[in-house]
Formats: sequence, structure tokens, C-alpha cells
Amino acid sequence: MQFLEDRIRKDGQVRPGNILKVDSFLNHQIDVDLLDEIGKAFYEQYRDEGITRILTIEASGIAIACAAARYFHVPVVFAKKAKSRNIDGEVFTSTVHSFTYGRDYQITLSKKYLGPDDTVLLIDDFLAVGKAMNGMLDVCEQAGAKVAGIGICIEKGFQEGGRILRGKGYKVTSLAIIDKMEDDGTIVFRKD
Amino acid sequence: MQFLEDRIRKDGQVRPGNILKVDSFLNHQIDVDLLDEIGKAFYEQYRDEGITRILTIEASGIAIACAAARYFHVPVVFAKKAKSRNIDGEVFTSTVHSFTYGRDYQITLSKKYLGPDDTVLLIDDFLAVGKAMNGMLDVCEQAGAKVAGIGICIEKGFQEGGRILRGKGYKVTSLAIIDKMEDDGTIVFRKD
Repeated sequence: MQFLEDRIRKDGQVRPGNILKVDSFLNHQIDVDLLDEIGKAFYEQYRDEGITRILTIEASGIAIACAAARYFHVPVVFAKKAKSRNIDGEVFTSTVHSFTYGRDYQITLSKKYLGPDDTVLLIDDFLAVGKAMNGMLDVCEQAGAKVAGIGICIEKGFQEGGRILRGKGYKVTSLAIIDKMEDDGTIVFRKD
Repeated sequence: MQFLEDRIRKDGQVRPGNILKVDSFLNHQIDVDLLDEIGKAFYEQYRDEGITRILTIEASGIAIACAAARYFHVPVVFAKKAKSRNIDGEVFTSTVHSFTYGRDYQITLSKKYLGPDDTVLLIDDFLAVGKAMNGMLDVCEQAGAKVAGIGICIEKGFQEGGRILRGKGYKVTSLAIIDKMEDDGTIVFRKD
């Protein structure tokens, strides 16, 4: 999507190690008007899919999932990264490796909020190797929920996550796919 | 606010130890239409205060802060609970004790996203003893930002956080204040 590529070019910052910082508008400070455009873009792709819930992982995914859910008028459910004292009852869990934080963590989702009657849109800010997304897909499989698709703001197309997920037959909608980042700040987006 | 009190009565669950679970609509599953009403209620209280940024803490506060920010058309900034490899540059930090998770943690906010020119609305889902809010106020003080007020969805009025903050002169807007919870599920709200 042109609007997101433009914003990444304007405000994104490339750091050594293929890190793209978008913390001025997406995952530390949040531009809610941009978020609304992102939510609408996902809605236009999945409006006829009978979505019943939008699933994401805390924390950066929450704002994006809510922006989309406003268009669908369905609930957001977010997987939690730590076992809270305040989640009781039965839960789905899956183990995820975070490259950002350099450790494994467990995601937890109450069984009350995902089940076999659900058709789910999974949403996250980034897709790189796909570890967090695989955790969410694992939870959907445990719940018997149907996955209608995967909505991603920024896919690092030079890493294998998107290719593998598409190879498995998932519909992956990435609003911006980066094929190359250079240490001088150059960003090459994949053409539609 | 009647709409939130009604929803708490309908879907909130009281657990021993003065725990109120609202995870079916506010902090695990999220009802985005309810969130929109919450955001609008905060806007009506602070629309004339010259708010430049809305500050919250990950994770449950993010959705609420974004719902409010849509009305104000200002950015949300959320303090992070873990030191990410992806935050670089100068940061404000403050230490917070979490009763939910039973440990201390540090909140981190990039200095780029809060400063002396800001007039801030602080938002969170719950206010009890006020530890998380004190961490955010500490960050605002470090930044030299003006605090216009504090917007809370659910205040546990039988704990001291709200009283202390109001005593210090802060404007605290709690959409529902609970004065008493009984183990049989009875919830007594403070009258306006």
C-alpha cells in the first residue's frame, strides 16, 4: 500500500542488522489516523470472509487489531505474553522465540475467547521469520478455529516467514513488503 | 458512566481478593464498540485542555488510549515494560510494582516522544493503589510535560490510588468507581 510505504520512507529508520525502526508512528508512538487507514485496508481484503474475531499478540499488535476490528465490528482477542494471575480457567498456550528480546516466551489465550465456530483474521505489526505468527496459528489450531487470513503491516520479504506461510496455503496480506534494506537507509519495497 | 457500569455488572466477574475480571470485554478480549464509547467519554472531559499526546502503558492501556486518541487526533505513546533491543537513544525510565504479576518492572519511554511542550492525558484500564500511574507521572515529570489529567476506565475506590492522586491536585476521571465488591459477586458503584 502506497500510504504505508510512503510513511516508512519518511519516518522509518534502518539500523544495522536489518532492523527497521517504526517507533515514531507504529509501535511506541502511534499515529491513530494512519492506524485507521491500516484497519480499513485489512477490512477491504477480508470484509466478505465472515470474520468473527481478530487475533493478535500483545503489545504492538493490539492497536492495529483494534483499528481493523472497528470496521468489522467484531471483538479483538490478544494473546498474552506472561501468565497473569488474572487469567483463570482453561487456556491455550504456545511457545514463541523472540529475536527482539532474545528469549523464548509463552503466549496464553483463554479458551473462552476462541473456538471451532470462529473465523479468524490474525494481525501483527511485523512479519519476519514468523515465530509469533506460528504461535498464533498453533493456538488457532488448538481451538479448531478457521484462519481466514493473516494481515501484516510490514513484512520483511528477505526473511522466510511470508514465503513459508504462503507455501502452506495461508492468505497473507502485507501492506508493505520490504525486499531489501541497506545500512545507508535505502529501503526497496516489493512491487505489487 | 452508566454504560460502563452496566457492562461491568453484566460481564465482569468478582474473584476473591478484590479481583475484578473484565477480560471478556476490556483486557483480553476487547469490545471495540465499547472502547469507542470510552474514548468519546474521555474526549468530552478533556477536549478543551489542549492535549498533545496520550500516554499509557502496555498492554491493556493501548487499546483504550487509541480509542481516545482518535477523537483528539493526537498521537498515543505507550511506555514499554521491557527493555527492547529496538529502543535506542535516550529514554525515561521508572520502576513500578505490579500486584497482578507479583514483581517490580521498569517502564521505558523514548525521550523523543515526550517533552516540555506536551500537555498529556494519561490513560489506563484500572486504578487501584496507583503504582503504574505513579510510574507514568514520574516519566511526565522527567520530561517536563504538563499533565492535564488522568483517564481511568475502572477505579477501585476502596483502594487508595485515586484518593492520593486527587489529593495531589490531579484531575482524575474514572468512568466507573467501585466502592465495594463482595465475594458473592455484588458490586457497589460510587454515585456521581
